[in-house]
Amino acid sequence: MNDEFYMDFALKLAQVSEGQTSPNPTVGAVIVKDGEIIGFGSHLKPGLPHAEVNALKMAGDRAEGSTVYVTLEPCCHYGKTPPCTTALIESHVQRVVIASMDPNPLVAGKGIALLRGAGIEVETGVLKEKADELNKAFFHFIQHKKPFVTLKQAITLDGKIAAEAGLNQKITGKEVQEDVHFDRERQDAILVGIGTILSDNPLLTNRYGKTKKQPIRIILDTHLKITPDKKVITDTNSKTWIFTGSKVEKDKIDSFTQPHIEIIQLSKPIIEIDELLTVLGKRHLSKLYVEGGSSINASFLKSGNVNQLITYVAPKIIGGDSAISMFGDLNVKEMNEAYKLTFQKVEVIGEDLKITSTLK
Amino acid sequence: MNDEFYMDFALKLAQVSEGQTSPNPTVGAVIVKDGEIIGFGSHLKPGLPHAEVNALKMAGDRAEGSTVYVTLEPCCHYGKTPPCTTALIESHVQRVVIASMDPNPLVAGKGIALLRGAGIEVETGVLKEKADELNKAFFHFIQHKKPFVTLKQAITLDGKIAAEAGLNQKITGKEVQEDVHFDRERQDAILVGIGTILSDNPLLTNRYGKTKKQPIRIILDTHLKITPDKKVITDTNSKTWIFTGSKVEKDKIDSFTQPHIEIIQLSKPIIEIDELLTVLGKRHLSKLYVEGGSSINASFLKSGNVNQLITYVAPKIIGGDSAISMFGDLNVKEMNEAYKLTFQKVEVIGEDLKITSTLK
Repeated sequence: MNDEFYMDFALKLAQVSEGQTSPNPTVGAVIVKDGEIIGFGSHLKPGLPHAEVNALKMAGDRAEGSTVYVTLEPCCHYGKTPPCTTALIESHVQRVVIASMDPNPLVAGKGIALLRGAGIEVETGVLKEKADELNKAFFHFIQHKKPFVTLKQAITLDGKIAAEAGLNQKITGKEVQEDVHFDRERQDAILVGIGTILSDNPLLTNRYGKTKKQPIRIILDTHLKITPDKKVITDTNSKTWIFTGSKVEKDKIDSFTQPHIEIIQLSKPIIEIDELLTVLGKRHLSKLYVEGGSSINASFLKSGNVNQLITYVAPKIIGGDSAISMFGDLNVKEMNEAYKLTFQKVEVIGEDLKITSTLK
Repeated sequence: MNDEFYMDFALKLAQVSEGQTSPNPTVGAVIVKDGEIIGFGSHLKPGLPHAEVNALKMAGDRAEGSTVYVTLEPCCHYGKTPPCTTALIESHVQRVVIASMDPNPLVAGKGIALLRGAGIEVETGVLKEKADELNKAFFHFIQHKKPFVTLKQAITLDGKIAAEAGLNQKITGKEVQEDVHFDRERQDAILVGIGTILSDNPLLTNRYGKTKKQPIRIILDTHLKITPDKKVITDTNSKTWIFTGSKVEKDKIDSFTQPHIEIIQLSKPIIEIDELLTVLGKRHLSKLYVEGGSSINASFLKSGNVNQLITYVAPKIIGGDSAISMFGDLNVKEMNEAYKLTFQKVEVIGEDLKITSTLK
């Protein structure tokens, strides 16, 4: 009972730094002794101390004999900072309560074993589900070496993303725009296709979020059709990575010289989502937010690499055959061949709905 | 405060008979004296006593000096039963508290005036919104002489009602089926197009609802293409009304002789929704549940006669161009010409969502 109360506080501390710790997880820690909180902290940024270490620093000598609540199994290896297990053992804490296990199955349990070996009582699984949810992208990244992919779309109730090709008109309201920017700032990168760049010329930055954090802008542009006047090229507030197919000529690639632009050529004439995500994984991107049109949406879904869908539904109906559907062709010929989802959450955002779902 | 408590109980009594009072409204009444409930009742069926009369009967002589809570302004005219205002006055009640006003603007307030003229204290508007919602179909019917139209569809998240034309495959789960049947039994009629009959051959009855009430089955069949083997023809548990255009030959119409079947020929070669609803209104249908495909949906929406949409959304994605969208063509060329809705309610039904919306 008390364990859940303190773990819940630790989770709140972890949430606060969501979006600024990547590629590290977000972690919170709370230290309690004699029914009193004597220290707490969270991991704020790669290279800075882990949550447990920050909390121990606050507790000082009082940490001896205390209970430490931490949302993720303490690390037992030297990375950019020394192992947290060592710090906990040296502080002579009495008990450690853990929510999530280390996501790397080869490492999971080792931190706990070390603590127990030093005579520290360890309890696991307290508010595990909530903690796992918080770091689901990180866990996915650690296990698959690819970013966690969120497909985001705005549709009418009848599943359309535009009345006709090339017409860039807002579907959802102002509150959704703010919500999207808030989600953008918790991502490592935003991805669109060249079609969106040519028709809508978006800036693709976080302007209405709570921080000034700018995810990397990624453009899929097989034939490198992008022109230098586009906002993602002229605006230097955020990096722009342009992925092309293998047939684009070197001269054309070399013509983009600005430091915030990078052209990355993949190995196939047509971009493959699998290869793209492998490259992004190697570049330590753990969260990718795809804001593409119907063909980008279809490519990602068919590649089997979609982890989550965020679908904003506007209270509108377009109808008809010329209107653009949310997904391009998926080779689904019968209803029972449809891609199956699980609805995770439905929220009302202004006049619109936000439906979060995962692939089954 | 106490007024709302008793009115809430009266509303619960009204709700119980929802679906069995049509074309009358559902009404509940509670009588209170010295802080004690001394009588209550609801209107159960056309021809049977109104809610106030049932409640007064229970209270007997104790009704003198009491407060009567009634969800709809008491009637002051002779219909199938004598006016409720007379019954209230003769019972010497002291005070009457009313939620909804009489929906007929020509009559609204007359019942209240009569009560006040007899020295009874009258208060109005208590829980009015809830009471208006309960009888919204009845109010619409009284004011427009046409049924309240609910368009019901089951779609995938990407707005498709079928993977390909003519393939009848379930989109939503078992819980939705039960919910649909529960909604069906509160309707006066269910409507589909001949396309649905020919491809799916549905029975269109209430089989999983809470009662055995069967709404009338209405088929829009411009050229009278229906064949005698279809379930809506062979099944006699419920009436079937088939509406045709003006060009269908009399011989063909006369070939349907079963007593539960009626063929109704409209005045134009192509069925007009306005004329259809006017005919249904004259036949005292106050609630119509449209379970059509994309072209029926589009016809109703374009006619301006849709009052409510109930959209079941399945956690599935079909994608593609050959899949059938929820609405046929609506002549919408730009997003700002889209039909505007207001989302009223979102419910989780099994694995699916139920979105209730109204036209703006």
